[in-house]
Amino acid sequence: MTDIAIEKKPSPETPSLKVPMRVTVLGGGSFGTAMANVASRNGCDTRMFIRDPAIAKEMQETRRNQRYLPDFVMDENLSFTSDIEYAVRDRDLILVAIPSSSFREVLRQIAPFISGQAIVSLTKGIEPDSFALMSDIIREELPQVAYGVLSGPNLAKELMAGIPAGTVIASPSEAVRFAVHQALASALFRVFANTDVQGVELGGALKNIYAVAMGMGAAYHVGENTRSMLLTRALAEMSRFAVRLGANPLTFLGLSGVGDLIATCSSPLSRNYQIGLALGQGKTLAEAVEALGQTAEGINTIRQVRAQAEILDVYMPITCALYEVIYEGKPPLGIALALMQNGHRSDVEFVLPNTTPAS
Amino acid sequence: MTDIAIEKKPSPETPSLKVPMRVTVLGGGSFGTAMANVASRNGCDTRMFIRDPAIAKEMQETRRNQRYLPDFVMDENLSFTSDIEYAVRDRDLILVAIPSSSFREVLRQIAPFISGQAIVSLTKGIEPDSFALMSDIIREELPQVAYGVLSGPNLAKELMAGIPAGTVIASPSEAVRFAVHQALASALFRVFANTDVQGVELGGALKNIYAVAMGMGAAYHVGENTRSMLLTRALAEMSRFAVRLGANPLTFLGLSGVGDLIATCSSPLSRNYQIGLALGQGKTLAEAVEALGQTAEGINTIRQVRAQAEILDVYMPITCALYEVIYEGKPPLGIALALMQNGHRSDVEFVLPNTTPAS
Repeated sequence: MTDIAIEKKPSPETPSLKVPMRVTVLGGGSFGTAMANVASRNGCDTRMFIRDPAIAKEMQETRRNQRYLPDFVMDENLSFTSDIEYAVRDRDLILVAIPSSSFREVLRQIAPFISGQAIVSLTKGIEPDSFALMSDIIREELPQVAYGVLSGPNLAKELMAGIPAGTVIASPSEAVRFAVHQALASALFRVFANTDVQGVELGGALKNIYAVAMGMGAAYHVGENTRSMLLTRALAEMSRFAVRLGANPLTFLGLSGVGDLIATCSSPLSRNYQIGLALGQGKTLAEAVEALGQTAEGINTIRQVRAQAEILDVYMPITCALYEVIYEGKPPLGIALALMQNGHRSDVEFVLPNTTPAS
Repeated sequence: MTDIAIEKKPSPETPSLKVPMRVTVLGGGSFGTAMANVASRNGCDTRMFIRDPAIAKEMQETRRNQRYLPDFVMDENLSFTSDIEYAVRDRDLILVAIPSSSFREVLRQIAPFISGQAIVSLTKGIEPDSFALMSDIIREELPQVAYGVLSGPNLAKELMAGIPAGTVIASPSEAVRFAVHQALASALFRVFANTDVQGVELGGALKNIYAVAMGMGAAYHVGENTRSMLLTRALAEMSRFAVRLGANPLTFLGLSGVGDLIATCSSPLSRNYQIGLALGQGKTLAEAVEALGQTAEGINTIRQVRAQAEILDVYMPITCALYEVIYEGKPPLGIALALMQNGHRSDVEFVLPNTTPAS
């Protein structure tokens, strides 16, 4: 068998000439933690910014993220701080893993300390009200920085367990793409490059809608044929929407598109799937949320995207059907069968345009 | 709830002015049977050609396909014949569901009776030795006919059970695309259109390779992250190969590309997956085939496609890695880890071309 060194560190006999990259992760959620751990294992000088000093101290001492990833010990070289200036100043790469609702606020806080650091968003989502993507917020708040977005099928627990995975760094800057590859890529984590920032971000932002749909479908008699059809129709409307916003439809062939969609829709335990299942079983949204004990991100995304699709005049039959079930009390089975009778349409409209108007 | 009529037939009060389409299916395998049943249920005048007169008679009497789909009763209006001239003459649509190794021979047999019928291939595969796709064979043998290919995630048993599904008809002729939609589309079976015949066919022909890879991966510690990465890298190399042969990469976003790939790779009981699993567990090909009692289509496809990729100079790392494991006795884990260390590459090369040469 091949000699496999999974966590290779530079040995004392062969000193590396490479200066370790200085990486900071903002935010102490599960994905930020997993990425900080990947960077630190890779030999980067890595800091995590945790707002609450008590939690930062606890993480520094226990090397565990008790709230989000209690079962894993983090890399021994990773350090933690609640001093935002110290976290951000004189670093090479700032990875921002802050919820979309406070993403803009955090960029405003770090603005005074930015002088050449590249900013990379790890956040999948859309800013409430503005419909801004995280890259839009970076460009608005820090117009002079080099930036990128990281997105892909990256369940944090699997990353912490060292299970092989891949992700996408999208940036207009080759320097940023290369730096992120240097910082994060390893034998367990492949980093692929893309230039289509909006396409990559929209894949991550929209996918939760279809996990709700998949859960709702599971309440009926669906098979592999049906699941595959639903996933490809989901891709059709995600890419249609993204193209309307300037993205490249081919991006959806990649890890951040179909890759993340498959991973998200294959998790029957996810909140999005469970809410969809309850709705398919005839529960109202209020009943479904009560049964689950919490709501799911996809439910809000459906409302946001449906409103935006109306403004932009984009045909999104699955999103609109989910909206009708969730917010207008329509029967799920009737809605599903109406979708099945949508007439003679193109499979991939970027290959063969639809001539009949969407209804 | 909505009033749902799943198998609506024209009622005597509202006579349909539509002349029923005359459809013939050549071949009595499971997929041909399922499609003949779909057409017949839809009101088409449908015949199946079964070479063996005894079997044709038995199917006519029992309305069952005892060998391939014994659990299902076929539509009462479907008829069966072993007279090839009667099967083919004066029909509108000939659906050919014959294995790739005898596809050409059957076209030669029907050639004398062809006078305007459209010919649609239902066969997923590549002709041994010639590397011809079924559409190539149709164009060579019957250069004057209007033709198409049908492909998608369509497990025959699910179709017989009436579980919702979708498929793709690819043809350069709008008349053929429309006729196939008219013949087959229903509230349980959506038919989408494409013009990229080669892209649609190659999706169906190549997917089995990756079911072998998925099975091999299952022998190790893989998660949803890994599965999603493998599927998207499979799409990358399938579309790269297809584009080299003139296809449109966007076709792989559709049902015949990613849709069929997902369905095929999600069946742990499939032969392709089982052979891959045995290989991943360290068995040789001979041992794996013996354990399974039979070989799998993907094993031959790997050899065919790897040879063709070499001729065409197309980078197909997964196919080549599988070839090395299966035919050269290389260790699967070492091969998999080498794939993980393939450097800084583009996620979707049709968006961002790779600048470093493939190794």
